[in-house]
Amino acid sequence: MTTENYMLEALELAKKAWGQTSPNPLVGAVVVKDNNIVGRGYHHRAGEAHAEVNALRDAGKNACGADIYVTLEPCSTFGRTPPCTQAIIDAGIKRVFVGSVDPNPAHAGKGLKILEQAGIETVCGIEKDACAKINEAFFSWISSGKPFVILKMAMTLDGKIATADGQSKWITGSAARGRVQYLRKWCDAVMVGGETVRKDRPGLTVRDTDAPQAIKLIATRSMDDKDLLEYFPDNSARAISPSSPAQWQDLLTELGKENITALLIEGGGELAAEVLNAGIVDKIEFHIALKILGGKDSRPVVGGKNPLGLDEAKLLRDYKLEIVGDDVIISGYLIK
Amino acid sequence: MTTENYMLEALELAKKAWGQTSPNPLVGAVVVKDNNIVGRGYHHRAGEAHAEVNALRDAGKNACGADIYVTLEPCSTFGRTPPCTQAIIDAGIKRVFVGSVDPNPAHAGKGLKILEQAGIETVCGIEKDACAKINEAFFSWISSGKPFVILKMAMTLDGKIATADGQSKWITGSAARGRVQYLRKWCDAVMVGGETVRKDRPGLTVRDTDAPQAIKLIATRSMDDKDLLEYFPDNSARAISPSSPAQWQDLLTELGKENITALLIEGGGELAAEVLNAGIVDKIEFHIALKILGGKDSRPVVGGKNPLGLDEAKLLRDYKLEIVGDDVIISGYLIK
Repeated sequence: MTTENYMLEALELAKKAWGQTSPNPLVGAVVVKDNNIVGRGYHHRAGEAHAEVNALRDAGKNACGADIYVTLEPCSTFGRTPPCTQAIIDAGIKRVFVGSVDPNPAHAGKGLKILEQAGIETVCGIEKDACAKINEAFFSWISSGKPFVILKMAMTLDGKIATADGQSKWITGSAARGRVQYLRKWCDAVMVGGETVRKDRPGLTVRDTDAPQAIKLIATRSMDDKDLLEYFPDNSARAISPSSPAQWQDLLTELGKENITALLIEGGGELAAEVLNAGIVDKIEFHIALKILGGKDSRPVVGGKNPLGLDEAKLLRDYKLEIVGDDVIISGYLIK
Repeated sequence: MTTENYMLEALELAKKAWGQTSPNPLVGAVVVKDNNIVGRGYHHRAGEAHAEVNALRDAGKNACGADIYVTLEPCSTFGRTPPCTQAIIDAGIKRVFVGSVDPNPAHAGKGLKILEQAGIETVCGIEKDACAKINEAFFSWISSGKPFVILKMAMTLDGKIATADGQSKWITGSAARGRVQYLRKWCDAVMVGGETVRKDRPGLTVRDTDAPQAIKLIATRSMDDKDLLEYFPDNSARAISPSSPAQWQDLLTELGKENITALLIEGGGELAAEVLNAGIVDKIEFHIALKILGGKDSRPVVGGKNPLGLDEAKLLRDYKLEIVGDDVIISGYLIK
């Protein structure tokens, strides 16, 4: 096995806790001795042991003189648990291979330095992009204080999300709707427009009961619409009504303070236009059914105010095409 | 080299005449002796020698005792040139490998039978799908009498083809626009709506001067709009105004009689809706720029009458995703 293989193994472990570690990142670790993995661990949820500690425990005495591969730079400070750097030193680890550096500017590189000062060899940047990608929300939140925002829309190939009178169930197939569950599990808060609640009455639930439910945010023009919240049981929904880009930014700042690292916006088309125009969307994910609906008044995936020129179009970078069941998913990052 | 390799070689030769053989199909042939290609040929244009004859000529005396690979079943009747089956027999060919069978029900299999009766071994169906695919328009026209219809639209990811006031240049990048040239070269006629002529003033020309120019058809609600035709030099454009599915079918029948095997429809959104609703579209090709325009009144890629339910959506089969320059092309066949 190469160093890359070991890091990918650690990455797979990290993903086991998908949607369950917020506001902490996903982290996985493997301990390797004489070309064998002798210990495996990952971070299960905030407040519990870090990946390195779990992997070292799993390795037991074999950790002495071994290498450890960890997807994220080991922490060097006391949080809710003692610093992992100390656990690594105490276990007698010889070399530490790291995927991505700690994105917190206050901590970046410190863990590596402490390890080196203790005479441990460190190698950084193994499968760096893949290790950073699984934590893109956490990385964004820790450096900006605001949640990472994904706008997910389900549409026909011709960009329609519903008929003129609002029928929208179902545009995409079951596999793409499974992907929505994956996104809901990932996010800490999910947002839809009031019109979507009125027409679709979505549950907005995460079906996997191991994962915490996302906070439900209902964007509405008038706070009189608060009766919409009654669709959702147990006071799980909140009404919000930002009406300017600055107010949207303020909302994100508030949500960030509540440890909401990832926000999923699920439409409809007017809310999509508003958040895109407010500039708060980091990434889009359009789920495209390979069918053509047509209709001049069918609901467009992005409505809102009319741009005056094509140069007002919002551009995407690093896009990705995926085939998911009968549908196609195009995702990409907004160029800001 | 395998039989498949030789057939793919013949297929590459066939494609050299892309857009230049109508109303004849594209055909390529190679003559193989002792594992060497000793003759190559393809059909250059209607009225000129067929692929087999060109390949046999190229092989000269080497054709005797050799194999021939031809992408389409050799013709067995006198057309504008003598039957290729006879040329193959006369040349002393030992075995004939065929890609796709003659799609003309009156001729299918006859060429193969004549060769077999002459003691020549025949093998049919080598790279059959690829050999049929390059002639999908010809195959469709020869069996239905109507042109094969492709609807090509350029749109933003959110399904817009222009701003509310009609600005549409340019949605897609230069590579996708190059693909449009490839399609125009392929087709015998190109159609746009009157509104597209008024707003965009498209030339609708084939830039490659070796290929014949496509006939330009301008779909317009009122024949008073005939002054639109003046945008196009040399009486190269015709106005048409079918107003029911039956009239659209009649138009296709007329065009088919004029040896128009392939029709390219390039928009706008109202014409797109009309031809989709008339059921005359065989294949769509949506060129998708990875940008989001938004705007409730921006022009939708498919407008027209409003469907009452999602079940009215038109479904696609055998779709294909391609990345072309900065854009994505999704193509597929309409399920009829």
